[in-house]
Amino acid sequence: MVTKGLQNIVIGTTNLSLVEGEKGQLVFRGYEIQDLARHATFEQVAYLLWHGKQPSDAETRALRQDMARHRALPADALNVLRALPANTEPMDALRTGVSAIGAATPGTNIDLEHALALTAQVATVIAAFHRLRQNLELVPPRADLDHGSNYLFMISGKEPTAAQRKMINAYLVLLADHGMNASTFTARVITSTGSDLYSAITGAVGALKGPLHGGAPSKVLDMLDAIGTPENAETWIRSALARKERLMGFGHRVYKTTDPRAEILREIAREYSDPAIFRLAQTVEDTGLELLHQAKPDQRLYTNVEFYSAAVMHAVGLPRDLFTATFAASRTAGWSAHVLEQAADNRLIRPDVEYVGPMGLTWNAA
Amino acid sequence: MVTKGLQNIVIGTTNLSLVEGEKGQLVFRGYEIQDLARHATFEQVAYLLWHGKQPSDAETRALRQDMARHRALPADALNVLRALPANTEPMDALRTGVSAIGAATPGTNIDLEHALALTAQVATVIAAFHRLRQNLELVPPRADLDHGSNYLFMISGKEPTAAQRKMINAYLVLLADHGMNASTFTARVITSTGSDLYSAITGAVGALKGPLHGGAPSKVLDMLDAIGTPENAETWIRSALARKERLMGFGHRVYKTTDPRAEILREIAREYSDPAIFRLAQTVEDTGLELLHQAKPDQRLYTNVEFYSAAVMHAVGLPRDLFTATFAASRTAGWSAHVLEQAADNRLIRPDVEYVGPMGLTWNAA
Repeated sequence: MVTKGLQNIVIGTTNLSLVEGEKGQLVFRGYEIQDLARHATFEQVAYLLWHGKQPSDAETRALRQDMARHRALPADALNVLRALPANTEPMDALRTGVSAIGAATPGTNIDLEHALALTAQVATVIAAFHRLRQNLELVPPRADLDHGSNYLFMISGKEPTAAQRKMINAYLVLLADHGMNASTFTARVITSTGSDLYSAITGAVGALKGPLHGGAPSKVLDMLDAIGTPENAETWIRSALARKERLMGFGHRVYKTTDPRAEILREIAREYSDPAIFRLAQTVEDTGLELLHQAKPDQRLYTNVEFYSAAVMHAVGLPRDLFTATFAASRTAGWSAHVLEQAADNRLIRPDVEYVGPMGLTWNAA
Repeated sequence: MVTKGLQNIVIGTTNLSLVEGEKGQLVFRGYEIQDLARHATFEQVAYLLWHGKQPSDAETRALRQDMARHRALPADALNVLRALPANTEPMDALRTGVSAIGAATPGTNIDLEHALALTAQVATVIAAFHRLRQNLELVPPRADLDHGSNYLFMISGKEPTAAQRKMINAYLVLLADHGMNASTFTARVITSTGSDLYSAITGAVGALKGPLHGGAPSKVLDMLDAIGTPENAETWIRSALARKERLMGFGHRVYKTTDPRAEILREIAREYSDPAIFRLAQTVEDTGLELLHQAKPDQRLYTNVEFYSAAVMHAVGLPRDLFTATFAASRTAGWSAHVLEQAADNRLIRPDVEYVGPMGLTWNAA
């Protein structure tokens, strides 16, 4: 039996996260995502994924210091970023940067220390490349800022507002892991050959880049721009659907009800983001869902995590072409936890394929 | 049902290659590997994988010119290689170099032209990094040499002998594709997200690096060195087996009989390689198989492709730490053909996983 796409094929067990698509539930290591988004920092959630438990207050303090200490890049990896053309796509720069950190980090590296270090460094790669491509001075990290706030600071050189700090932290928490998605699976397949952490995360970055996975979040903002005003939403969407165009930010392969991350991001956007953009987004969501329902009454479609990510990412001041890289900065916590889990009880991942090509040909050796 | 490792799970169909593990048969696009190893150049086999047919004489000439024309690296990618530390593992350098070529190659790129260009460039990345790490001048490619000979030339600066040309070409032909192995699968998973050629091949390089896949061929040579002489083989192997050590170059997850590539490489090594090393290798093979059979009469174990690769790679003058990268230089032909095939009829590859962690925990929001 051919199972293209591997849908419903269970490739193993995990202790890391549960995605209940029918129920709209997302759990990291026993904690509901709503609970974590409300109470935990990104660093704590990364710790939870790596260690399987909530850090104590002392562990949280040590963790924050450890993450801050690992923010600097190896000099050689920074030189690699300097060598890239300024028009490099940020995900290509991140993929190359992670690979270069691996090149500059000899030895065995599938362990908690390297997982933590790389999670800290990925944010620096993105920020450093963004400064370099604009010919701007690098902004040294600030140890007194948490991971998300420091990320925004290294990008813009400006200290984020309290609202921006809350938004970036919640975003990083929400996206930190999500079951066996395609980039996480990539990281596990690479790990399964006995390869190293940097190879696995480099591959995962490449997979996340694809528009069917993480490569399209800025398209929601492009759509909102094109619609322009709430009043224009219905006409615009009707005409897009008539042209058989996909609405950006609607639907998900796994969730058959509201993506819990979308609900949380909607509330965060409502509370902290630009009110005009939020009102536009909400009108587009309501109108889009109504018109999609009219067009396909049998399908249950909902907005996905990318929909309100757009408003939140915009409100924290990130340029659109860094949205997917910022997703990667969060997911590195989950990817690295999966790499650790795969390596701890490994079996080479090697499926079969059915050959349907010709047989019995003879090379014409002229 | 959990199918760890995905063994016997068929993820789709392919027109590219057939691996019949029970029969010891390997077919590329209808042609037996023995036929190709005897009559075809690496460039022709790459063409066969990409186009599905043997090139005509005119197409072969055009192909050779196209490959030669694409050997130069983008200047930015070369600068990335210059930025890497001299002690970088060659597979880390290759992974970073392929990623950097992608960074320097904007636009859509899953097409025949980019597949051909990257297959040409991968050889240059390896050779350039090898020169740079020794502080040697780069050796410009020579358009009058075929792919394999030019690769050896760019590495050493010396024109290879006729025997070396035959050996490197046969090696590159034999390794060019091999069904749905872990690195090829990695490339297909990355492609399935809608990502690009360079992301896919970068990920595949990272997967090939693992010792359970392509990362261990030089260990056969280390073992032959340790054994030293044919007379010492039996004592050495008996003592290794008594210590429960794995013999390098024996056994394969798929082949339950002789790997046809191993047989071809044995003949090539017999004809062209250092006679002393060949005699040692053959004695170790015979003795190893006999003692393994005595220890495990029920298991059918044979030498795999890595076993005689060692003698052949040594005879063409490659340093040991470039063996796996040379494997990658060959496999880029197959990887890129799989990327093209996946993209032509794509479905996101996203398996399921069973969550076995805790539930119902509450974050202690102190």
